[in-house]
Amino acid sequence: MNAMITPQPPLAAPLAEPLSPEGLEAALRAIGAARYHDLHPFHDLLHGGHLNKGQVQAWALNRYCYQAAIPRKDAALMGRCTDRELRREWLHRITDHDGFGEDAGGIERWLVLTDGLGLPRDYVISTKGALPATRFAVEAYVRFVQDNTLLEAVASSLTELFAPSIHRRRIDGMLANYDFIDETVVAYFRRRLDQAPRDADFALDWVKRHARTAEQQQAVLDALTFKTEVLWAQLDALHHAYVTPGLIPPGAFRPTISGG
Amino acid sequence: MNAMITPQPPLAAPLAEPLSPEGLEAALRAIGAARYHDLHPFHDLLHGGHLNKGQVQAWALNRYCYQAAIPRKDAALMGRCTDRELRREWLHRITDHDGFGEDAGGIERWLVLTDGLGLPRDYVISTKGALPATRFAVEAYVRFVQDNTLLEAVASSLTELFAPSIHRRRIDGMLANYDFIDETVVAYFRRRLDQAPRDADFALDWVKRHARTAEQQQAVLDALTFKTEVLWAQLDALHHAYVTPGLIPPGAFRPTISGG
Repeated sequence: MNAMITPQPPLAAPLAEPLSPEGLEAALRAIGAARYHDLHPFHDLLHGGHLNKGQVQAWALNRYCYQAAIPRKDAALMGRCTDRELRREWLHRITDHDGFGEDAGGIERWLVLTDGLGLPRDYVISTKGALPATRFAVEAYVRFVQDNTLLEAVASSLTELFAPSIHRRRIDGMLANYDFIDETVVAYFRRRLDQAPRDADFALDWVKRHARTAEQQQAVLDALTFKTEVLWAQLDALHHAYVTPGLIPPGAFRPTISGG
Repeated sequence: MNAMITPQPPLAAPLAEPLSPEGLEAALRAIGAARYHDLHPFHDLLHGGHLNKGQVQAWALNRYCYQAAIPRKDAALMGRCTDRELRREWLHRITDHDGFGEDAGGIERWLVLTDGLGLPRDYVISTKGALPATRFAVEAYVRFVQDNTLLEAVASSLTELFAPSIHRRRIDGMLANYDFIDETVVAYFRRRLDQAPRDADFALDWVKRHARTAEQQQAVLDALTFKTEVLWAQLDALHHAYVTPGLIPPGAFRPTISGG
């Protein structure tokens, strides 16, 4: 009836032989270079000052879902980890986001951002206005960490290797381009400039030491690919709903202000 | 800093008083009228003959993920069900899709559709070319049925109440508008014209009998809303990747033919 087509892109062949630790790191970094969400056009619009305030609100309240899920993800990882040293090292990821003692934590800093954008806190925290696709992607990440091996769970955190440059561009771009953004509201990203590299370096070293067979290394590469999909899908959903074609799903947040 | 905005749409107030069974049915049908994916512009394009063959391929191979997950969803429901009568009634949903005896089943009929569109079976079945957002939405549905009450799991199937009219439009529209579509490839939808109403009528009756309190009824309404989000998000992802703006995520299927 029809000639079969060759699917594009073709299915990648799995690793046949184990890589050296350095080779594995290079393969992980290549995934970031090809798939990290700094390549998504929504980020160019966000950082370049090309969004209106309503679109920035939509981004912030959707991204809140992701921020709010991170401590659950990290607790799920620790809940499956019999290595006390790894748990001791991993713990600060939870307190970085949930806060501890004097530090209110990253989720609070994110709410300072949404406050600054004029969004009611109870609405943001309810996640009722977030896009369903955002929630599906975020929960897929939490489930991935619950359901896969500890090695894959750790590897899925490695997108943080690529985070500092995007955070620097975000801070500079948003401060320069939006009059509704000031130092208070970018505090989340300033803090992550220190936190993310420390976490990423630890996780990368751990993965390089623990992924020795070709199968384990393939699982690590697949885990990082999966995580890039989680991040990318969130921006696709924002772009579709609030930029082009601007088709907001039933029930999702509808900006009432469009000015800069 | 900024005046708080009033979120749009506002948070819906939960039911305060229980509805009559007929009132509950009317509320369920109102959710379908407002949120079912027959309202999505992608379906107008699909049924109206406005997509090229590559776009129809993308739709079919993404929708395969959903079709392939349905028996897992129904098995998860049965795995939590202590009511033997309900299990006996529910069982045919699995065989409708997986096949039984002489009947090859709905998933096979879906593969006849993707065969007819020229897609290699192993590529479709691998789901490697599907959009990550499709997989996230589909797995969110399976998880919902695993994690929520049996009442909510049954209620989430009620989108089938709204399916026959979209299937009729799909059969007529696709046969009339695409020269690569014939009776063989629409067999899946012809069969669902009989199956879906029987299933939907049973589930609606069951829900009306078992959801008596306002809380239970609210949970039922929320479950159906959730399910409409699962369906809508799949079309949003297709529309964004393959129609407007046509931004295909890294790694996803790239059509190599664009002719009708």
